[in-house]
Amino acid sequence: MWNGIIAKYKDFFDIKDEEKIITLNEGNTPLIPAKNIGEMLGGINLYLKYEGLNTTGSFKDRGMTMAVTKAVQEGSRAIICASTGNTSASAAAYAAKAGLKCYVLIPNNKIALGKLAQAILYGAEVIPVEGNFDDALRIVREIAAEGKVTLVNSINPYRLLGQRSGAYEVCDQLEGKIDYLSIPVGNAGNISAYWAGFKDYHKAGKLEKLPVMLGFQAEGAAPIVEDRIFEEPETVATAIRIGNPASWDKAVAARDESKGLIQKVTDIEILEAQKLLASREGIFVEPASAASIAGVMKLSKEGYLQKGKNIVAVLTGNGLKDPSVVSPEKHIKTYGVKTEEIKTLIYRSLGSDQND
Amino acid sequence: MWNGIIAKYKDFFDIKDEEKIITLNEGNTPLIPAKNIGEMLGGINLYLKYEGLNTTGSFKDRGMTMAVTKAVQEGSRAIICASTGNTSASAAAYAAKAGLKCYVLIPNNKIALGKLAQAILYGAEVIPVEGNFDDALRIVREIAAEGKVTLVNSINPYRLLGQRSGAYEVCDQLEGKIDYLSIPVGNAGNISAYWAGFKDYHKAGKLEKLPVMLGFQAEGAAPIVEDRIFEEPETVATAIRIGNPASWDKAVAARDESKGLIQKVTDIEILEAQKLLASREGIFVEPASAASIAGVMKLSKEGYLQKGKNIVAVLTGNGLKDPSVVSPEKHIKTYGVKTEEIKTLIYRSLGSDQND
Repeated sequence: MWNGIIAKYKDFFDIKDEEKIITLNEGNTPLIPAKNIGEMLGGINLYLKYEGLNTTGSFKDRGMTMAVTKAVQEGSRAIICASTGNTSASAAAYAAKAGLKCYVLIPNNKIALGKLAQAILYGAEVIPVEGNFDDALRIVREIAAEGKVTLVNSINPYRLLGQRSGAYEVCDQLEGKIDYLSIPVGNAGNISAYWAGFKDYHKAGKLEKLPVMLGFQAEGAAPIVEDRIFEEPETVATAIRIGNPASWDKAVAARDESKGLIQKVTDIEILEAQKLLASREGIFVEPASAASIAGVMKLSKEGYLQKGKNIVAVLTGNGLKDPSVVSPEKHIKTYGVKTEEIKTLIYRSLGSDQND
Repeated sequence: MWNGIIAKYKDFFDIKDEEKIITLNEGNTPLIPAKNIGEMLGGINLYLKYEGLNTTGSFKDRGMTMAVTKAVQEGSRAIICASTGNTSASAAAYAAKAGLKCYVLIPNNKIALGKLAQAILYGAEVIPVEGNFDDALRIVREIAAEGKVTLVNSINPYRLLGQRSGAYEVCDQLEGKIDYLSIPVGNAGNISAYWAGFKDYHKAGKLEKLPVMLGFQAEGAAPIVEDRIFEEPETVATAIRIGNPASWDKAVAARDESKGLIQKVTDIEILEAQKLLASREGIFVEPASAASIAGVMKLSKEGYLQKGKNIVAVLTGNGLKDPSVVSPEKHIKTYGVKTEEIKTLIYRSLGSDQND
């Protein structure tokens, strides 16, 4: 029985036997072969690591189980974070499980409805602050420094430690046969954690060859690509709308050590990739996740990816967190269709396909 | 590596080696110990089978992989279903993976936004019909009878066959130590499938003692409990808003053969259970799923469930499919809180807790 990432990968984490583990049985997410898109791109072996199937719907759970387990061990009664969404949902859920209070500071602008609904229902106190994400993070750091509440943003080192489990799982699932790892880059913690995880496995003799890391930022929030802070980052991919990533240096190191790259993709490319994942592979992801596929498509067109190579794309969050990208009104033109009309509609649609 | 329920439980399914399997790597969902609620209820061992972590966010994927695999084998080019939500999302996703057309007939009234967004993005043609679910199902049957499209509602026998895998997994996860299985009852296919699955495992010598089946309907849609068709079923739990269940007889047989029960819970009990799951266990489910927990709470109060017993509650769908139960406006009273006010807010909240 799967009991979460700490129980599974205990040897890699600094957890003692007697510690109380706070887990929502996160991890163990499927690695789904994307044969349709892989063929479209000329025969690459594309695999989707669908992190939207973690318990709160994003990869953040991997780090949160570590951070909250440690907070409880240290006697903390409350946790706090600044968040544009996924972190808040995850923090709130693990705090609920542990019986801790949870304070979530959100930037005073758009945040995906599903994520906010989660944090509230899990029982967190949500405080919208005047300012952007960086402002919220600054306040959170100040409060945590006073020692009464534990910070669980990714500057909490246990977060990235737990997130390494994503890399361990991918290695286990593919028996080490990974040539490239494609991943969205926002605050840059996840690309850093995956790289550290691959190196752990390499060192432990469980992975022969380290993969090449391919990171993708959104064009309107591409600080690492352009080597400058974005004061007003803007992209439809809210989960990677970060202008000054916390793990900037680590991400650059992951890129350079692996002889990989960090590039940018446009919002249009992101939304096209999101649609393609749904309509060809049956996988619904939030826009930020689709950046990894948009990137693979771009590199494939440029001839960078060779046929037969194994490429894992990390899909960081569930599309259900942000269904606002779809407007049902645009797709359903008529309401209350009568019985006799329905057959006509369907057979016309089937027939038109035959004449294509 | 997990390759979906057909690959895992091939021996129990009528699938030949050479058949092309259409899978989204569904199944393998976590069984999460609900220690906080279990203690609240006097010390029962409550486990949550969190089916919201199937690929499209509900248990429907287990049956859909079978139904669509068979449709492809039989040379079908299109599938069709009537649905209040979860079935449509699942059908659309598997059709996308298989390259089939998908037609979804939805009743011309409320349907959870997340589910509709899924079906549309996966590329299904969504047709809202004049009438309720039963009307939509009647039309779908008529069209399927003409032989050009394959029906994938639960009257397609492969659906319930695939859904038996939920029971297999629970047995594997608990090594057969299950005393009770609590499950929401709408169209009644899932309770029937679980019971059939337990019997399969029992027959195969993999399960010593069959569990007692506990089914729960919503008060406003309780045809089996009251032994009468509900012409206008009504409940906040849209996924079980069914007035005339397709698997009525099978559900009654499951109840009687297992010496179990099928009872009803109110919408208020359902919403309270939903909130409790989120705020105490960190699990966000759609309202219908919470019926299984509302039922367990009710039976626990009545002294029906004894301390130390193992109870598995099936949580059928992800809460992100229907976040409308939470109104952020009600919880976030102030927007744009200034830095200096935030500490005051948080320390007051922490302090008030100390004085409790």
